[in-house]
Amino acid sequence: MKKLSVPDIKKVSIDENGFFGRLIDLVRDKVIPYQWETLNDRVEGAAPSHCIENFRIAAGESQGEFYGCVFQDSDLAKWIEAVAYSLMTKPNPELEKTTDEVIDLIARAQQPDGYLNTYYTVKEPGKRWTNLRDNHELYCAGHMMEAAVAYYYATGKRKLLDVMTRMAYHIDSVIGPEEGKLHGYPGHEEIELALISMYGATKDPLMLKLAKYFIDERGREPKFFNLEAEKREGRKPRWEDRGYYAQWHLPVREQTALEGHAVRALYLATGMADVARETGDETLLRACETLFDNLIKRRMYITGGVGSTVHGEAFTFDYDLPNDTVYAETCASIALCFFARAMLQMKPDSKYADALETALYNTCLAGMSLDGRNFFYVNPLEVWPEASHKAQIRRHVLPVRPKWFGCACCPPNLARLIASIGKYIYTIDSDRVYMNLYIDGESELDTASGSVKISVETKYPLDGEVKIKPSAGKYALCLRIPAYADGKYSISVNGKAYDAPVENGYAVLDREWSEGDVIDLSISVVPHRVYANVNVRADAGRVAVRRGPIVYCLEEADNGKPIAGLRLPRDAELKEEYKPDKLCGIVEITADGYAYVPDEDDTLYRTKPPKCVPAKLTFIPYYTWANRGEGEMSVYVLEQ
Amino acid sequence: MKKLSVPDIKKVSIDENGFFGRLIDLVRDKVIPYQWETLNDRVEGAAPSHCIENFRIAAGESQGEFYGCVFQDSDLAKWIEAVAYSLMTKPNPELEKTTDEVIDLIARAQQPDGYLNTYYTVKEPGKRWTNLRDNHELYCAGHMMEAAVAYYYATGKRKLLDVMTRMAYHIDSVIGPEEGKLHGYPGHEEIELALISMYGATKDPLMLKLAKYFIDERGREPKFFNLEAEKREGRKPRWEDRGYYAQWHLPVREQTALEGHAVRALYLATGMADVARETGDETLLRACETLFDNLIKRRMYITGGVGSTVHGEAFTFDYDLPNDTVYAETCASIALCFFARAMLQMKPDSKYADALETALYNTCLAGMSLDGRNFFYVNPLEVWPEASHKAQIRRHVLPVRPKWFGCACCPPNLARLIASIGKYIYTIDSDRVYMNLYIDGESELDTASGSVKISVETKYPLDGEVKIKPSAGKYALCLRIPAYADGKYSISVNGKAYDAPVENGYAVLDREWSEGDVIDLSISVVPHRVYANVNVRADAGRVAVRRGPIVYCLEEADNGKPIAGLRLPRDAELKEEYKPDKLCGIVEITADGYAYVPDEDDTLYRTKPPKCVPAKLTFIPYYTWANRGEGEMSVYVLEQ
Repeated sequence: MKKLSVPDIKKVSIDENGFFGRLIDLVRDKVIPYQWETLNDRVEGAAPSHCIENFRIAAGESQGEFYGCVFQDSDLAKWIEAVAYSLMTKPNPELEKTTDEVIDLIARAQQPDGYLNTYYTVKEPGKRWTNLRDNHELYCAGHMMEAAVAYYYATGKRKLLDVMTRMAYHIDSVIGPEEGKLHGYPGHEEIELALISMYGATKDPLMLKLAKYFIDERGREPKFFNLEAEKREGRKPRWEDRGYYAQWHLPVREQTALEGHAVRALYLATGMADVARETGDETLLRACETLFDNLIKRRMYITGGVGSTVHGEAFTFDYDLPNDTVYAETCASIALCFFARAMLQMKPDSKYADALETALYNTCLAGMSLDGRNFFYVNPLEVWPEASHKAQIRRHVLPVRPKWFGCACCPPNLARLIASIGKYIYTIDSDRVYMNLYIDGESELDTASGSVKISVETKYPLDGEVKIKPSAGKYALCLRIPAYADGKYSISVNGKAYDAPVENGYAVLDREWSEGDVIDLSISVVPHRVYANVNVRADAGRVAVRRGPIVYCLEEADNGKPIAGLRLPRDAELKEEYKPDKLCGIVEITADGYAYVPDEDDTLYRTKPPKCVPAKLTFIPYYTWANRGEGEMSVYVLEQ
Repeated sequence: MKKLSVPDIKKVSIDENGFFGRLIDLVRDKVIPYQWETLNDRVEGAAPSHCIENFRIAAGESQGEFYGCVFQDSDLAKWIEAVAYSLMTKPNPELEKTTDEVIDLIARAQQPDGYLNTYYTVKEPGKRWTNLRDNHELYCAGHMMEAAVAYYYATGKRKLLDVMTRMAYHIDSVIGPEEGKLHGYPGHEEIELALISMYGATKDPLMLKLAKYFIDERGREPKFFNLEAEKREGRKPRWEDRGYYAQWHLPVREQTALEGHAVRALYLATGMADVARETGDETLLRACETLFDNLIKRRMYITGGVGSTVHGEAFTFDYDLPNDTVYAETCASIALCFFARAMLQMKPDSKYADALETALYNTCLAGMSLDGRNFFYVNPLEVWPEASHKAQIRRHVLPVRPKWFGCACCPPNLARLIASIGKYIYTIDSDRVYMNLYIDGESELDTASGSVKISVETKYPLDGEVKIKPSAGKYALCLRIPAYADGKYSISVNGKAYDAPVENGYAVLDREWSEGDVIDLSISVVPHRVYANVNVRADAGRVAVRRGPIVYCLEEADNGKPIAGLRLPRDAELKEEYKPDKLCGIVEITADGYAYVPDEDDTLYRTKPPKCVPAKLTFIPYYTWANRGEGEMSVYVLEQ
């Protein structure tokens, strides 16, 4: 089995003026400071967090009650992780000092035996580890481990890493295969992938052992969570929990589709892939491949959104992808990015990078407003604001991004994803450098042939022109050819067409590079139609518009309403125009179509077709929707 | 204000071999006996009813606990009412004896002060009238009053009528405007319309007074139900119930749309119309007109289904008519028939009869399997069985009719509607006889010009040919010209074309009739397309097929799947063929269309449109769906 590495973010510098540079700036300058205020309950009108205060109370430095979700601690963890990534690319002594201080607080909140969790420490000190199914102790520990590792890489400071190492040892003393320990695993997966990060940073085999135990034990008979519930409640539960919601319905190697809560399912899948990679476990790799293929072939929205229903924020079944009652949580698409990257670290196959890019540029980015101040949890493909306000089944589908959430998992998760985007661009297999994403900047990568420098100039995804300047040396550059390009791309080296063989979706340029070599990769990003598989009932007769990795949508602000009355003829030309001043700079797509509009006949049902008028349809990138007030929106449009 | 009368069902005989004759037979021979077994808990595999047993316990003749819903008594009431209608058209001494006996039991269960309700009598005897909002005492009383009146008309026996008169007096002693009485009204409306029936049978002004009080008091400030809740719970409720669910959000004359629980809303509207008619209250009539117009212009499915959401079995908002997550309870469409008939008794306008006919022939009839043994609560316009099984938001949408329900309101309600269909055919205004429905049979009607006899021969709705033979005399026959005919009809008298003026949708044939006169009304029932108003987002790009009053649908049994992949070209001919042996005899409609079918490409999103093949589309009447096992179904089909 292959084991590809990911470069150190510190050595991946991203152009400040580029597409992602703007987002990274936004996270650094707006999101991180804003979230710090929120964690400290200093934002008026936002739901209270109480997160820092919980740590103070747990440390015995403040009086009061625990407040918030059982996983409130994880908000701080995600914030520290985002800070760490931000510090890696741009030092900020003041921010580092603040973070050091809050890490000191965390250390003081840790209990003498290594235990760390403010909910149990403050609220139910006697009940630790009695409800792994619901109460997120391992989940919070996982997030804090990820923060610890990132902060250690960013600053070289070990304090949080040591705190979390002690916590890992504490967990190992409580959970494991040995008699007298709980034969359990987390209700909300996360710690599996975090332990693998800890293993990378500490090389401590306990981390790998624990991660592997959680993966292997999950779903085994007798089911731990049913035994745990029986013990906790003193009697057999009234109904047998079959475990789909939290993926313990079967041992993980027997699972063939992602089921239940989408974020959990994808964190688990990422952990499975991480453990497979570190242990060389082929059976686990096979299971991951099966899960991934089912996901992208049957359960993912065109936007990279995942999770079809609000009930359990969950997957439902193959091809069930309703656009209006959808869930598609921002965190779930972030988790999909994790899973895809973990797969890329074993299998250099562009399908993983395609899914990563789709989720990243569409659902993940749509999770945040263009000014970085408001966030979506749910990312619908179709919005009728009146339904969101008045119909209970669509109440979770907000037509505009709110400021913050009581359960605020998505905003800090998005912040850490954007801040760490440098971890997603390259994967390195010996002397092969795989370019998975096209983001402008300069990187220094460790390959089997030594350190290589790669400079990328591109406006991607605004256009598909990517200029790559590799440093001298004998190594292979493997350029991902996105599936959306449908084979339409060209590569030249130093101005001359270059015929690179394509392996698993990557054009492989394996040669001796000289100083001054220039590769020009030109990927077709012409706007084109995308059709869903006919098994997706919700999309029958409808078509979406995509340009490069960017999925487009129709908004009321440009097209009036009802959006559902618009039709795109199959042969209508999709015209593109760069609009530098619209929505922070977009390529707008227009087409001559039709609009079925309300007429003077106010009857509900009529034998005459509704009135149809020619109409210019204006499509904007999905990630920019809902930045101009409340209105109707749809990704799919009826095909004429 | 006009006040039209409805003929005595006993004098409306319906041809046994006709479309409705078969249904009436089914109710008499299958449904009524089956429901009797159910009420007595003698059907294996069906949810227990305990209804009769509750009455025995309340009468002190059996030991045990009350079991069932708080409105369990109403199941027996609806059964008695259905029996009464059945006896009116076909005597059955044995059934009458059984019914007399159960009425004796009811009388014995009545308390000395006139109170009748098994739930409170058995379970919470001290808590009568403390929860008008939720606990259905008035609702059950209403149904038993309807049963009492029907049984009195059917048999001349007053026993149940006297029981319910005593109950009405008891209610009047507890509720009313006087000090010391509850200034309340029912949480589930029904008694209003029932009291008007009682008034018709007994002429007792107390009945009218009480009905009017319930209508007038509803929604007044301060809101009775909030005061009641405060009193019951000993403290202000945590949230203010605004009353939309049960239509007490505003005084009824200020309500402009049917809101909340659809059955309640329509029972209320019927009661409002009944009170308006009996009191000549124009303000109430105006309110009813507004509610009705909003309903048919903005809130009714093409099938006459009403109630867009399972949450509260309720209306949502204008034009929100999802086909797949729909509720469209059978009882709600039955209630729509009541409301429409009540409006026809004041306003001879064909729009009321059109809605009545649509609800009756589509949603109401779809509520029962063709063999009369299984029933739907929810009547979807689109079914994907896998979604019903696996997606929580569509779990209420059953793909096949179950045997019976724990909360069994719909089956007995449907039985009484079908058994009483003779009450819906005619309305009489002085010497004008309005024919609202075309059902074969012979009737004797009391008009201002004396008794007239009308014989109708028709296969309607299988075809649109109606032969009418009026008895001699000077009176007007007003023949409804259904809106679906779009003006395509012809009338001849004694074989000669007759040019009848059309007033409010009725062709008025006002003349001196001679013995032997024959009217031939020919209504075009050619299959045609129906389009929803473009404001109905759910139906954009789609078209339905209708023939006469019958809405059609596509079933997997005829068309394969996915049904969502079928397309009907706008110009494709809709061919009809009578199929006597299919689904109890239907006119099947076929058209040359297309099917988008799964192809060898198993990707989820592709730039190539899905594979399209020519396909014969086969439409069957909506009311016959789900009689051939489980499969996909849709009323709407994509228009090519």
